[in-house]
Amino acid sequence: MKIKIIVPLATDEYNAGVKEEVDTVKAPDCTISIENLKKGPQSIEGRYDEFMAGPDIVKIACKAQDQGFDGIVIDCFGEPLVPVVRELVDIPVIGGFAGALMAASMICQKFSIINVLDRVVAMNRTLVRDYGMAENIASMPVIGMPVNRLKEKKKLTERLVAVSLEAIETHGAQAIVLGCTGMLDVARGVARILKEKGKPAPVIDPTTTAVTMLQSLIRNGLSQSRLTYFKSEEQKAL
Amino acid sequence: MKIKIIVPLATDEYNAGVKEEVDTVKAPDCTISIENLKKGPQSIEGRYDEFMAGPDIVKIACKAQDQGFDGIVIDCFGEPLVPVVRELVDIPVIGGFAGALMAASMICQKFSIINVLDRVVAMNRTLVRDYGMAENIASMPVIGMPVNRLKEKKKLTERLVAVSLEAIETHGAQAIVLGCTGMLDVARGVARILKEKGKPAPVIDPTTTAVTMLQSLIRNGLSQSRLTYFKSEEQKAL
Amino acid sequence: MKIKIIVPLATDEYNAGVKEEVDTVKAPDCTISIENLKKGPQSIEGRYDEFMAGPDIVKIACKAQDQGFDGIVIDCFGEPLVPVVRELVDIPVIGGFAGALMAASMICQKFSIINVLDRVVAMNRTLVRDYGMAENIASMPVIGMPVNRLKEKKKLTERLVAVSLEAIETHGAQAIVLGCTGMLDVARGVARILKEKGKPAPVIDPTTTAVTMLQSLIRNGLSQSRLTYFKSEEQKAL
Amino acid sequence: MKIKIIVPLATDEYNAGVKEEVDTVKAPDCTISIENLKKGPQSIEGRYDEFMAGPDIVKIACKAQDQGFDGIVIDCFGEPLVPVVRELVDIPVIGGFAGALMAASMICQKFSIINVLDRVVAMNRTLVRDYGMAENIASMPVIGMPVNRLKEKKKLTERLVAVSLEAIETHGAQAIVLGCTGMLDVARGVARILKEKGKPAPVIDPTTTAVTMLQSLIRNGLSQSRLTYFKSEEQKAL
Amino acid sequence: MKIKIIVPLATDEYNAGVKEEVDTVKAPDCTISIENLKKGPQSIEGRYDEFMAGPDIVKIACKAQDQGFDGIVIDCFGEPLVPVVRELVDIPVIGGFAGALMAASMICQKFSIINVLDRVVAMNRTLVRDYGMAENIASMPVIGMPVNRLKEKKKLTERLVAVSLEAIETHGAQAIVLGCTGMLDVARGVARILKEKGKPAPVIDPTTTAVTMLQSLIRNGLSQSRLTYFKSEEQKAL
Amino acid sequence: MKIKIIVPLATDEYNAGVKEEVDTVKAPDCTISIENLKKGPQSIEGRYDEFMAGPDIVKIACKAQDQGFDGIVIDCFGEPLVPVVRELVDIPVIGGFAGALMAASMICQKFSIINVLDRVVAMNRTLVRDYGMAENIASMPVIGMPVNRLKEKKKLTERLVAVSLEAIETHGAQAIVLGCTGMLDVARGVARILKEKGKPAPVIDPTTTAVTMLQSLIRNGLSQSRLTYFKSEEQKAL
Repeated sequence: MKIKIIVPLATDEYNAGVKEEVDTVKAPDCTISIENLKKGPQSIEGRYDEFMAGPDIVKIACKAQDQGFDGIVIDCFGEPLVPVVRELVDIPVIGGFAGALMAASMICQKFSIINVLDRVVAMNRTLVRDYGMAENIASMPVIGMPVNRLKEKKKLTERLVAVSLEAIETHGAQAIVLGCTGMLDVARGVARILKEKGKPAPVIDPTTTAVTMLQSLIRNGLSQSRLTYFKSEEQKAL
Repeated sequence: MKIKIIVPLATDEYNAGVKEEVDTVKAPDCTISIENLKKGPQSIEGRYDEFMAGPDIVKIACKAQDQGFDGIVIDCFGEPLVPVVRELVDIPVIGGFAGALMAASMICQKFSIINVLDRVVAMNRTLVRDYGMAENIASMPVIGMPVNRLKEKKKLTERLVAVSLEAIETHGAQAIVLGCTGMLDVARGVARILKEKGKPAPVIDPTTTAVTMLQSLIRNGLSQSRLTYFKSEEQKAL
Repeated sequence: MKIKIIVPLATDEYNAGVKEEVDTVKAPDCTISIENLKKGPQSIEGRYDEFMAGPDIVKIACKAQDQGFDGIVIDCFGEPLVPVVRELVDIPVIGGFAGALMAASMICQKFSIINVLDRVVAMNRTLVRDYGMAENIASMPVIGMPVNRLKEKKKLTERLVAVSLEAIETHGAQAIVLGCTGMLDVARGVARILKEKGKPAPVIDPTTTAVTMLQSLIRNGLSQSRLTYFKSEEQKAL
Repeated sequence: MKIKIIVPLATDEYNAGVKEEVDTVKAPDCTISIENLKKGPQSIEGRYDEFMAGPDIVKIACKAQDQGFDGIVIDCFGEPLVPVVRELVDIPVIGGFAGALMAASMICQKFSIINVLDRVVAMNRTLVRDYGMAENIASMPVIGMPVNRLKEKKKLTERLVAVSLEAIETHGAQAIVLGCTGMLDVARGVARILKEKGKPAPVIDPTTTAVTMLQSLIRNGLSQSRLTYFKSEEQKAL
Repeated sequence: MKIKIIVPLATDEYNAGVKEEVDTVKAPDCTISIENLKKGPQSIEGRYDEFMAGPDIVKIACKAQDQGFDGIVIDCFGEPLVPVVRELVDIPVIGGFAGALMAASMICQKFSIINVLDRVVAMNRTLVRDYGMAENIASMPVIGMPVNRLKEKKKLTERLVAVSLEAIETHGAQAIVLGCTGMLDVARGVARILKEKGKPAPVIDPTTTAVTMLQSLIRNGLSQSRLTYFKSEEQKAL
Repeated sequence: MKIKIIVPLATDEYNAGVKEEVDTVKAPDCTISIENLKKGPQSIEGRYDEFMAGPDIVKIACKAQDQGFDGIVIDCFGEPLVPVVRELVDIPVIGGFAGALMAASMICQKFSIINVLDRVVAMNRTLVRDYGMAENIASMPVIGMPVNRLKEKKKLTERLVAVSLEAIETHGAQAIVLGCTGMLDVARGVARILKEKGKPAPVIDPTTTAVTMLQSLIRNGLSQSRLTYFKSEEQKAL
């Protein structure tokens, strides 16, 4: 199976890291192609950023279907344009949010989503509500690091551990969802430290779970419901 | 990766069908071993049936971990003993319910679970509530066929189509979850007929989604949270 | 106070009707300017239609703030681009959904939203969930008329009455929200007929309630929370 | 339009303050008449206080309809007797709670209601539940000042700011609803201080939002649903 | 233990029936005194009826405490004045709603409340929401008989059976709560007929469950929480 | 009436304490027989412990029905095997959870459940969700004492008071439910201390409320619904 990962930013600086991350989870019969935008934001930390990323996401997604890809990951926790693209293509489309949330809901009862900045919390809660998952959220704390500083892995890990411990001890979190696909290559390290500290919470990486969940949908022959995401003649005219 | 599927019944009559079904979705690097109970019920249509299946499920599950399996599917929609086994083994354990529900929640907004008999509806609703998914359930209708007659594929398909159409038209279902792992080899057929009738709802097979969701967890190195399912010294003494 | 109403369609055919409708509710100290898009869809019946309407909505909204308007109505029940525009401007922005829902919630306990077509139901439910209002929704039935036929007032009224009666009698609706801003000039007529038929449900027009709710926000000096809709330096660079 | 504001206390000491407050938001075509009770409590801080205020509220409300008023505000956050009066009169009736909550829900996702004393928290939560708004409440903290000391504006402002900051930082509030109509003339001041402190939450005054929301209902020709608040022959016999 | 049952109507015509009913469930160490109002409504079918019953309910309740009663039942499903009386007396106070709902929730998962008339449905739903029980309600259908005709036992039974069957078959009810304390002496008969018809739903009588639940509270030394229903000095001045 | 209390542990060390406790609440016409397991766990602090207690619970329960008991209490907050036994016997069966939760919901709006150890919190939340009571839970804190140390009454009381005060002051609890039936003979003491400290929360003992709630069901002729807990021919073959 062929999967297209769209990095919804006008920069290729994350591509290598994403490739490394997803290579750890892809099935032997799966090939993955990563593509970033030509035009768009440098990071997504607001709804207007998502808006600016829109046109290129739509173009790459439609092209991916024409090129025979079997599924698309829009690699951002906020799932920009996922509902729009789902109307336009027949192959399954998934963002960074749903796979992580569903994985968490399969292995625990309540979990926390760790956000980069205060400014994305309400956006992520809109997704929580839209997916009907509010009951399972323990809390939505913030590490206070913008996306462009997430490459500071040591500081990122420290902040994630600190905020996760508080979520576990104070809010009742039983697992941790990393609330940004830019938090690459840290999930297993954070999980190990939490376990050493006596709080063995699974830590869920939204990039890798998006890929494996998409693989799961593809193997089952499933795609977005046309009773949720209708298709129209006009929409084919893009 | 090696997956153990436990058919929680004291009969091997379903094993071949399950094998055929899961072979359609297993990844190339995945081997699957199917095992039924020595002692237990012929079908699971009540909580007492689950109770009677308990001891052998626990035995097979613990043995599977010792034998080096990477994950376990307890192949029944009602997920009998899943919480107990999750306390006993470290490898991920999944039943038929969670995978199907999470798959459905990723591709639509509201869906119906089709039950075999009235007597299992409350049991399945307990799972809906425990997983925090009540918001996404359109309805939980019943086809009125006991498990031991589900091999009548033609009648099963007819009943599923009829009940699904009503769920879509009257209850607002946008996808259909087959609420029994004994409904083998019908999901794609039902989906095709629904599409032909102008109601293109995805139809989700709980057996195959359980397997692919478990593959997804294994690839991510995820297992049940020890903050939800604690382990104790005594429990090792089984 | 000066209000800008953006009709998010690339046609001026609705402007006169909207003007007539909102003139019935505007306060003496309120002037209203109606503007449609230069480029965009002819009607909004899907997420891709909203996407296509995006750029012009953003432009008109930002310009409106520069021109000294005190508030903006994006005149569509689906509230396209409302979250994006709320990040960009400081004046209050409201779509067709929120005002109608809040008005309904003030005067009854449970109400139905009447949709034009099946294809918009899931979109409108996303709004229901995002606004945290699911508890108050009796049902979300459909009249089966596309937006471009809503000018057939007689048929529209008949369909609305029929569907409303079913919502009241079968789903427990106590009020009716018209789920499309294109259902102009029919709310009071439908309400009168329902009353004559012994089912005196208030009928809520999303266009007029959007205007009066915006007037209400402006008089109170209220606008979108910057803790929900953050503003950033980059965003000013439009 | 003519609006009657009933101050549900047996004292005229709040009337001037209320008048001053509502004059800031009333439309040019709106005249407002304020009337307090002859007999009743000095403040409302319990359900028995509401009970004691009942007879005079009912009398004034019925008289107001006879005198040609277009709508009634029962000016207390707890909305005493609002459901009863809604059965008795045809003109729209609103209390202090609904308008504030609906305004908050239009401009943010989650907000806190600031209560005067512990003793009113459960009463206000009953309203939260009855209006189906529990999902949107971040918290319901308390300033610890009885109604008769709310005239100490400096202390009131200090307490509101302190409690609001905690609600924003700890509970995730994105807006603040003042949970007592006696908190007059402080909303804008508190909002200004919160903004200076980097937490720009809108602060919602229940008195002024009640008036503008009532204006909104009146302009739309809306009143309480007779399917929620039925009228009976006997009830006319008051 | 001594229990006071207040029949909140200005008639003694129900007293004998209530006595007969509660005698079937009272413990050997329990004496029950039934008292109706001197002044008030003939039946309670609206919020204004409840208002009119208020003063006498409060008087009888306070007197009952002075006379050494151990607990009070306000014998109406709508629980008129229960919150007010709970502020005034220290002995436990219960209405017809809570006991029935809690009994139902202990023996099934979802149940329907059968209402007398459309006009009380919203009132009863306010109680459902206030007690946080919405999740367990299958439906709230109506038999269309006013309180003063409930003495027609044969017709009442027929209507209850018909509506209950629909609730079970269509709405998923697993038990039936009689939504009016005037539906005396029919619960067991309706349950027997439902069982004969293959739908063995328990049928819950709000009068008898109120009495046994109050007995239960008294034996445990429990009364209404003073953190929900605060008491004040002024309130003692009645 | 005759009630069987099953202490689901393979020890008789709790029997005397349970007897003393329930004797304070049993009605004069009620005789109670207490019986522990022959084979099973020493304490229940996990799902596997419940599994190990299963066979003997089922045996004792079925025997109890044959011996003419009128109802069964499975005396553990976690309600082990309650759903299974409800399928097997016709007399009402109740665990420690439901009675306590329903009592709390009748006398306050929000309450906390105090747990023994972190490891049981998720198990108890499963019950909260299954009974549809999540809305009423203020928090689920932990005292950090295993079951086998609960006989240290002084320490237990201190921990309960400390945790209850935090639940009241920080989480908004208005009543306290003791979340383990092993917390014997402390409820009234804790309640008295909380009252002395100005936080008069009722404290609910799950053992005594289970008994009085079962008495309540028996007096009303109510038992578990056969539409929730179906019975089958095979099940009689135990």
